[in-house]
Amino acid sequence: MKAPVITLITDFGLSDEYVGVMKGVIASINPQATVIDITHHISPQNIIQAAFILWCSYQYFPKNTIHVVVVDPGVGSHRKIVAIKTNTYFFLSPDNGVLSFIIKKHDCSCVHVDRSEFFLSNISHTFHGRDIFSPVAAHLSNSMDIYNFGQSVLPEQLITIPQITPSFENNVITGMVIMNDRFGNIISNISLNHLNQTGIKPENASIHIGNHHISGIVSHYEQVRKGDLLAILGSKGFLEISINCGNACEALSVQSGCKIFVLKS
Amino acid sequence: MKAPVITLITDFGLSDEYVGVMKGVIASINPQATVIDITHHISPQNIIQAAFILWCSYQYFPKNTIHVVVVDPGVGSHRKIVAIKTNTYFFLSPDNGVLSFIIKKHDCSCVHVDRSEFFLSNISHTFHGRDIFSPVAAHLSNSMDIYNFGQSVLPEQLITIPQITPSFENNVITGMVIMNDRFGNIISNISLNHLNQTGIKPENASIHIGNHHISGIVSHYEQVRKGDLLAILGSKGFLEISINCGNACEALSVQSGCKIFVLKS
Amino acid sequence: MKAPVITLITDFGLSDEYVGVMKGVIASINPQATVIDITHHISPQNIIQAAFILWCSYQYFPKNTIHVVVVDPGVGSHRKIVAIKTNTYFFLSPDNGVLSFIIKKHDCSCVHVDRSEFFLSNISHTFHGRDIFSPVAAHLSNSMDIYNFGQSVLPEQLITIPQITPSFENNVITGMVIMNDRFGNIISNISLNHLNQTGIKPENASIHIGNHHISGIVSHYEQVRKGDLLAILGSKGFLEISINCGNACEALSVQSGCKIFVLKS
Repeated sequence: MKAPVITLITDFGLSDEYVGVMKGVIASINPQATVIDITHHISPQNIIQAAFILWCSYQYFPKNTIHVVVVDPGVGSHRKIVAIKTNTYFFLSPDNGVLSFIIKKHDCSCVHVDRSEFFLSNISHTFHGRDIFSPVAAHLSNSMDIYNFGQSVLPEQLITIPQITPSFENNVITGMVIMNDRFGNIISNISLNHLNQTGIKPENASIHIGNHHISGIVSHYEQVRKGDLLAILGSKGFLEISINCGNACEALSVQSGCKIFVLKS
Repeated sequence: MKAPVITLITDFGLSDEYVGVMKGVIASINPQATVIDITHHISPQNIIQAAFILWCSYQYFPKNTIHVVVVDPGVGSHRKIVAIKTNTYFFLSPDNGVLSFIIKKHDCSCVHVDRSEFFLSNISHTFHGRDIFSPVAAHLSNSMDIYNFGQSVLPEQLITIPQITPSFENNVITGMVIMNDRFGNIISNISLNHLNQTGIKPENASIHIGNHHISGIVSHYEQVRKGDLLAILGSKGFLEISINCGNACEALSVQSGCKIFVLKS
Repeated sequence: MKAPVITLITDFGLSDEYVGVMKGVIASINPQATVIDITHHISPQNIIQAAFILWCSYQYFPKNTIHVVVVDPGVGSHRKIVAIKTNTYFFLSPDNGVLSFIIKKHDCSCVHVDRSEFFLSNISHTFHGRDIFSPVAAHLSNSMDIYNFGQSVLPEQLITIPQITPSFENNVITGMVIMNDRFGNIISNISLNHLNQTGIKPENASIHIGNHHISGIVSHYEQVRKGDLLAILGSKGFLEISINCGNACEALSVQSGCKIFVLKS
């Protein structure tokens, strides 16, 4: 039999014991669950980045995987917790927009999680990852139906972040920088799909970021000279700004949230 | 059947191959064991910090979990190795005080581990994590009795660190800073229990750290203004010094070991 | 039954989702596989360091472990991918020299991996870790024979890096610095074996690195005074340059690739 998979995306880092303790709680409830870390290095409280990393990752996991995202600026306040079931996966997170992409793309059943009999018995104000998310994820991995965890809500009632997807006006795509990776690539929220919608062909795209301008989207780094700036559709499926054999993030010094414009040249 | 859980707390970091190799040794002896990392980022050779992280974590794991701590400034010297069994858990570590909290709180059976037939065949001077701790932990996870690994000793014969717990004099609690977490919170070794013992109610506590003074312990960050210093009982159950929406560690620049005083205001 | 073990050595770091996604792909194909991280912090594209870490690690894993190394400066170019079977282990990596030590030491069967029916259906130009290495490793862990994955080649046809092992001339061993560990130890590629080959006894060795000279190889740090430089055969089995209670890497400021000479004093 397949062991159920639970994935974790958090901003907890790995220096503290937080992630290990979450796994201890899960193992206490369902010792058969396989926990896979997607990343624990989301910038603290960066919901958009977490939403994006989930979006780039979730489909590579086995059917019925339970994806748990704990990036939770509102912990201890009255923010709600949401569990979602699509045809293929489960998602569990604060109701803060981190599932925006998922809700937009998939039909889903949703509940606001509030049945405390499935939580640890003492709930801290600051570590719901341990006290709520881990035990609920473990119970889900024991094939418990999501409707056991709280009241059903409509997807439209959940919080989403409209600016997480690019906007279109006068054939200009306005996207933004989501993050930089370890290799200095600048990753945007603009995909091939968005280019197709505006009828922009990669080779004819004109990309503007900060004071920089790039003509055309290449398919290999080697299409430009070493040290030159380029735009490429990266392995996540999104437009990336890179420097062949260099670090675009350092060279352009752009921040997450910075705008990127794409138009027909 | 439940797979036995082995947890790891070390100061090895994750850049080198050390932790991976420990898991290889464990998998070679007991492929059924589930290894969970609590943290590998203990400050190098910081026994007090390791003792504290273990104390904040161990109880969230399934019954019979084997908690292994390899923070071991004395590796290669004549320091001993200890295996402990409580009602619920096993612990394996150098005999250097890292189990101080556990020994103080729980009845336990203890042995000094020295039966080399359970070690790897070549023992290095510097990496007992691989050569001794991993194979012994794996054998323990195969349900081997602790008395197989060496001679029984009394808990009183083990090394403990008295200053790891706060002291009390004239209704003043003298504790210390154990560590800072990723969010800049300063974490002390003073718990609600210690407050109760001196009859100090959280709302009447007066906290002194460095040149700073805080009146009262709050239960939510939002009880003070953004940027203000506060004291709170954190998710680990210990007194923490924080700044609402800020980084207390940077603002106060206190080190591990720095004293914290709590008295009735 | 033993779950097959797959190990990972990459330069992906842990901040991005790359490693988590590789594990998702593996779990989708073989949910029984146990994935163990050796390290993901190889210096970007440092093939020699990756070769060395593999060499220090692989033998501590269970028989039939599949060791996967994705340090791949040539990703997206025409570099090949190689799968190797020795008596005890499997290895999967780009054909770029990262298996130099393994090929030199062990008899092995080798194939160039190119059967795309075992890859993900969309192959990116930049993330073969996800698209090729993970699915092939997962299929290998399902007991699939390596000859299914591509055409057999001779070990001599694979790329190796000659300078990865020390050279000998006039009874002088010329090795190099491979890496520094978290504790500031400088790790070379010179082993006791190499000393034996030149008839140099550890106590009579004369070690030269940069402008520094060390007389004799000690067996314990404590054989020199605190703060003094020393040479020792470390836990990996290789000559290391250390400072007793200090950080040799910072003190000597040597880089990976820097030469080390050993001769008879």
